[in-house]
Amino acid sequence: MTATALSGKELATEIRAETAARAAELTAAGRPPTLAVVVATADESSAWYVRSIARAAEKAGVHCDVIDVGPHAAAAGIAGTLVRLNADDAVHGVILQTPLPEGVNAQEMALAIDVGKDVDGANPASLGRLAAGLPAFAPATAQAVVAILDHHGIELSGRPVAMVGRSTVVGKPAAHLLLDRNATVTICHSRTRDLAAVTRAAEVVVAAVGRAGLITAEYVSPGAVVVDVGTNPTGDGGLAGDVDAASVGAVAAALTPVPGGVGPVTTALLLSHTVQAAARVRAGG
Amino acid sequence: MTATALSGKELATEIRAETAARAAELTAAGRPPTLAVVVATADESSAWYVRSIARAAEKAGVHCDVIDVGPHAAAAGIAGTLVRLNADDAVHGVILQTPLPEGVNAQEMALAIDVGKDVDGANPASLGRLAAGLPAFAPATAQAVVAILDHHGIELSGRPVAMVGRSTVVGKPAAHLLLDRNATVTICHSRTRDLAAVTRAAEVVVAAVGRAGLITAEYVSPGAVVVDVGTNPTGDGGLAGDVDAASVGAVAAALTPVPGGVGPVTTALLLSHTVQAAARVRAGG
Repeated sequence: MTATALSGKELATEIRAETAARAAELTAAGRPPTLAVVVATADESSAWYVRSIARAAEKAGVHCDVIDVGPHAAAAGIAGTLVRLNADDAVHGVILQTPLPEGVNAQEMALAIDVGKDVDGANPASLGRLAAGLPAFAPATAQAVVAILDHHGIELSGRPVAMVGRSTVVGKPAAHLLLDRNATVTICHSRTRDLAAVTRAAEVVVAAVGRAGLITAEYVSPGAVVVDVGTNPTGDGGLAGDVDAASVGAVAAALTPVPGGVGPVTTALLLSHTVQAAARVRAGG
Repeated sequence: MTATALSGKELATEIRAETAARAAELTAAGRPPTLAVVVATADESSAWYVRSIARAAEKAGVHCDVIDVGPHAAAAGIAGTLVRLNADDAVHGVILQTPLPEGVNAQEMALAIDVGKDVDGANPASLGRLAAGLPAFAPATAQAVVAILDHHGIELSGRPVAMVGRSTVVGKPAAHLLLDRNATVTICHSRTRDLAAVTRAAEVVVAAVGRAGLITAEYVSPGAVVVDVGTNPTGDGGLAGDVDAASVGAVAAALTPVPGGVGPVTTALLLSHTVQAAARVRAGG
């Protein structure tokens, strides 16, 4: 392992400290910033994630309401809950946790989240605004990719970047954010012919495919920077990235660790967005 | 010139014929499909384009209303016009023509266009829906790029495609459409380092930058397919593409001509979208 570890912990700590300070101000002004997390699943790893958000929120002084509508909720019921939260002035950020019950489309549901409260950029309208250069919250994970590169002084302008993964949650919004930083972005996916050749041509590789260890040394050119967005549960209760750190670490110049890389920055940004949303409402009203 | 000319005329004729047939049905049913074009400029090439849309609409049996709010219209007035058209059941498609008066942001204005009537995919919400795989009209030009490739049997799945240009109107939505067809898409732009090397690595090159003749032979690999979205006015009243057809035509396998390539397909798709919007309203009401 010769690659520099691009830790996200220090950056997450910075964001959390700033968020906590702003949250304290808002609370003192009688407007405690509040994040609502709508859950419609009994999925255990989802429950684990929601608990980790709730804990982080509490530490930052952000109120977190978990609204569990049950794993059999219908689309209309979920949308109704989101509409009610949009109308609730005491709620500033709204997240719809996935997975959703079978037959309920996450993108369609997310259309019901008010763009001003869409702190995880789940509403396709937020993605469109982002792509069009209008104010919107980016999905926290996508923003964490760029934030962690910025924090470690990695230049993006003009550089070839391979975005591996084209999900609406990470790959597509991250591509827009990277493009906005003047990177030349290649979006790769499961149907990409000779993926390793495409990623080897990039100076920065971002992996967000949800397949543990997919990116091995042969996918990476010497000196490249690699961002690992993967959080694949391992058999022993741990987390594995999309990048095989052991082999890639010997080739790449720098690599974000899993855990401790993109993950903590994502959670911190989610809370930061909530406080921003609360501050904006306050300024507006 | 050894490259095959990928003409758009035949495809445009097909789309127009289908559109005219559906328009006649809708008109017979007492619901003449209607496109409203909002103009807030005295720009001559814009006026030329609007006249060409109006002529094409008339031929297809689509009613076209040009609403000229004047080159000094304020943002509120333009948005108000769009909101009024959204509410008008006799109007099925709405286009906001650019350029807009100084200080008026086209993306912001387009937010006011109802997504169901946004037949040129100008509203960032339409772009977001497109990226998220939800129903929406794509910008006609972006869709024309994929339609013309399909028409000529050019395979996209798995192939490396260079999208040169990152505008909200063409480059970004076209990238999503190409991605949706499983192409591996590289989005290049003015800040791309060694653009020629990037485009030479692609099997399909789409040029949408608005610079006459930018793409010369050295930007294209032998056997590549080149789509020219450029419509740059020439001194003598003609149109020049972004591709230098004389030099690229000797290297590429196929090339869309300008004029007669993407242009006629774009206009035909715009009218097709309007008829689709009218048919949908009718089905719904």
